[in-house]
Amino acid sequence: MAERHRILIIGGGYGGLYAARALARHDVDITLVDRRNHHLFSPLLYQVATGALTPSEIAQPLRLILRRQQNVKVLLAEATGIDPQARTVRIDDGADLEYDSLIVATGTKHSYFGNDGWAEYAPGIKTLEDALQMRARILDAFENAELETDTARQHEWMTFVIVGAGPTGVELAGSLCEIARDTLPRDFRVINTEEALVYLVEGTDRVLPTYPRASSKAAARQLAQLGVTIRTRTMVTDIDEAGVTVRGTEGTETTRLQARTVLWAAGVAVGRFGRAVAEATSAPTDRVGRIRVDDDLTIPGFPDVWVVGDLAAVEWTPGRMVPGVAQGGIQGGRYAARAIIARRDGVTIPGFTYKDLGELATIGRLRAVADFRIVRFSGFPAWFMWLAIHIFWLIGLQNRVLVMMRWAWSFISRGRGSRLITGLPSHSSDREGRGGLG
Amino acid sequence: MAERHRILIIGGGYGGLYAARALARHDVDITLVDRRNHHLFSPLLYQVATGALTPSEIAQPLRLILRRQQNVKVLLAEATGIDPQARTVRIDDGADLEYDSLIVATGTKHSYFGNDGWAEYAPGIKTLEDALQMRARILDAFENAELETDTARQHEWMTFVIVGAGPTGVELAGSLCEIARDTLPRDFRVINTEEALVYLVEGTDRVLPTYPRASSKAAARQLAQLGVTIRTRTMVTDIDEAGVTVRGTEGTETTRLQARTVLWAAGVAVGRFGRAVAEATSAPTDRVGRIRVDDDLTIPGFPDVWVVGDLAAVEWTPGRMVPGVAQGGIQGGRYAARAIIARRDGVTIPGFTYKDLGELATIGRLRAVADFRIVRFSGFPAWFMWLAIHIFWLIGLQNRVLVMMRWAWSFISRGRGSRLITGLPSHSSDREGRGGLG
Repeated sequence: MAERHRILIIGGGYGGLYAARALARHDVDITLVDRRNHHLFSPLLYQVATGALTPSEIAQPLRLILRRQQNVKVLLAEATGIDPQARTVRIDDGADLEYDSLIVATGTKHSYFGNDGWAEYAPGIKTLEDALQMRARILDAFENAELETDTARQHEWMTFVIVGAGPTGVELAGSLCEIARDTLPRDFRVINTEEALVYLVEGTDRVLPTYPRASSKAAARQLAQLGVTIRTRTMVTDIDEAGVTVRGTEGTETTRLQARTVLWAAGVAVGRFGRAVAEATSAPTDRVGRIRVDDDLTIPGFPDVWVVGDLAAVEWTPGRMVPGVAQGGIQGGRYAARAIIARRDGVTIPGFTYKDLGELATIGRLRAVADFRIVRFSGFPAWFMWLAIHIFWLIGLQNRVLVMMRWAWSFISRGRGSRLITGLPSHSSDREGRGGLG
Repeated sequence: MAERHRILIIGGGYGGLYAARALARHDVDITLVDRRNHHLFSPLLYQVATGALTPSEIAQPLRLILRRQQNVKVLLAEATGIDPQARTVRIDDGADLEYDSLIVATGTKHSYFGNDGWAEYAPGIKTLEDALQMRARILDAFENAELETDTARQHEWMTFVIVGAGPTGVELAGSLCEIARDTLPRDFRVINTEEALVYLVEGTDRVLPTYPRASSKAAARQLAQLGVTIRTRTMVTDIDEAGVTVRGTEGTETTRLQARTVLWAAGVAVGRFGRAVAEATSAPTDRVGRIRVDDDLTIPGFPDVWVVGDLAAVEWTPGRMVPGVAQGGIQGGRYAARAIIARRDGVTIPGFTYKDLGELATIGRLRAVADFRIVRFSGFPAWFMWLAIHIFWLIGLQNRVLVMMRWAWSFISRGRGSRLITGLPSHSSDREGRGGLG
């Protein structure tokens, strides 16, 4: 009897997890490696950052998701290097894992366009830790405003700048306004949280630049209703502790936005293992380092190495790339699983095609924009659609029920249940443990 | 018109919070200072440490709890010093807060009996951060066992030592056994988690040493049924990365317990502000530094400074101290509130008397011991009583409903919903952010 085909999957996000699940009924040995023990429902990260959901509601242990699938072994480890000739991946405890087929699904991280010093002042939002740090910053800002006696500085604490008006930036801006207007007002005695200012800064000419123009327009209108100040065609030239310096894309004059809280929702970069794979295979990459794969999602010259999800640069229709969203990973992961089995069995299948399911973004409670190509709408119907789809996709029955209950409750009470600041407060003399999670 | 009486409360635990709430209907100005933004339902911390509950379910923002009480102002700050003659408390931004009456309710922390180096290997459990760090350690241990190829080391990863068999140690030991026997077995492919060993080490002659002997006996029997190895009359002489060295209290011979995970549930110490208060008022203290107050809970010679909760050493009946549990803080806080109003109004009230409501400790799912003085029971009835009381006391309607739902679910599924390891895994090259929360 021949040995079972060994499939190694690096990364337990959408691409990696859905590849593993698609292989459930096949007679193969799968090893799934992730440096975190959980799969993250990343489209809802901003809900954790704004206190509407808790970490356990948008994340599930990989072992729990895959416990019934006996052909998968989960390893909590970080992949550090690859030898594509020997067909091995090295993990951080020094062991080499052998594979017959490899699926690389390690995703991307955010980037500060070369200004890594900005990270300290403008946290991004890719992981649970990021989201919780963001939550602590937002809540701390209001706490500090309450303590502040100088009016100008109080104003700075109550001014928020969000950089990048993609779906995450738009969702953050909408939620922040709602926190300030609906959730917090009665909690404070000195400040009036309704006076908080929220700026949304975007380099292109509109919010949601990858969406159809009609959606951008609807989103901009709804954001304005919530009280967000939108600055399109605006580049960030500097960020420090006390604010952001911006410049119009066509001008030379800079403007200063005095704000103690800056949130980063822009830029894409490739992590260490993604870069190691590109280097070891001499794979072609795009401007930010994503790997340009063949139309069967393998690396040119390495038919046993698939790249799926955010890390892959794949054309969808001429000149248009598969977007870095959950659907891109899910469809890529499932395709790679099918292709591996086909290859093993000597069958030929057609190349990967991305099935566009449309776009959707929420703008706070009750507002959203949706574009499903055949139909396009905004406002409450779009928001309701968004809610239904996201609850449906949350993995695990318990989470679905709990998230629904919490949302129902938040909706009735206009409260946000998860407003803990964990780690020590920023004005404490002991700064260790800061940005801790809760 | 006379100025309103200014009451300053340091600490938002049971003592501080219940004092503030007891003053709700009085014409006074209250300032509540805490360095964390939340009140913590500390008797359930071990449930977070063992993945049954999430941080937001056992903690509530102080502002949210007190939002309707217009005579309270909440400040997120750390008290650093006191001038009891000038009647001011200094906070960490340098400001001095004036008071007419002061309530000090900053509680205690755990102590390593002078061996602070043990903290690194044996985390304690006083804060949410502690509980989440403990959760990460427990889950990481099983992950590391799964990765380990050496049998002896695998065994070490699957051995757990809990130091201290008070209620917290007992509850942790019971939960740990349940995790290993009921929750995890199907999640792993290499290790059999049911083979995990849990040691409970205690210096006195029995578990739950402050409880009646009959309760200790019932608890020991139930722990043994769950598979906990109990070592009473046993002192810890050393802790390092690979285990614990213990010695019988009457012997000289030491024994080594090889275990990669050691959890600390022993020792009491007073924090910085508590020590500053004792020093500035030359207050008498007990062996661990708790302040010996008069029978009206004020510091001798300082009739305007009350000390309530854990930080106070108060005799209850001759030779028996008020225990450091939630009820001690609640009753002390309420008494201080009444005493302050009585003093302001020139009325005399009797000294503080502690009303003992009995003792209760759970030992995993369905097991517990209860002693309500007039009636004493163990097993399922005690567990059910424990559940009802704890849910009743959880502050906030949402939490009560959610906690009940999650418990109902855990009970049916034998699962634990909150099994996230956040922060980077311990075997990662980047150790920063370790012990983060989730």
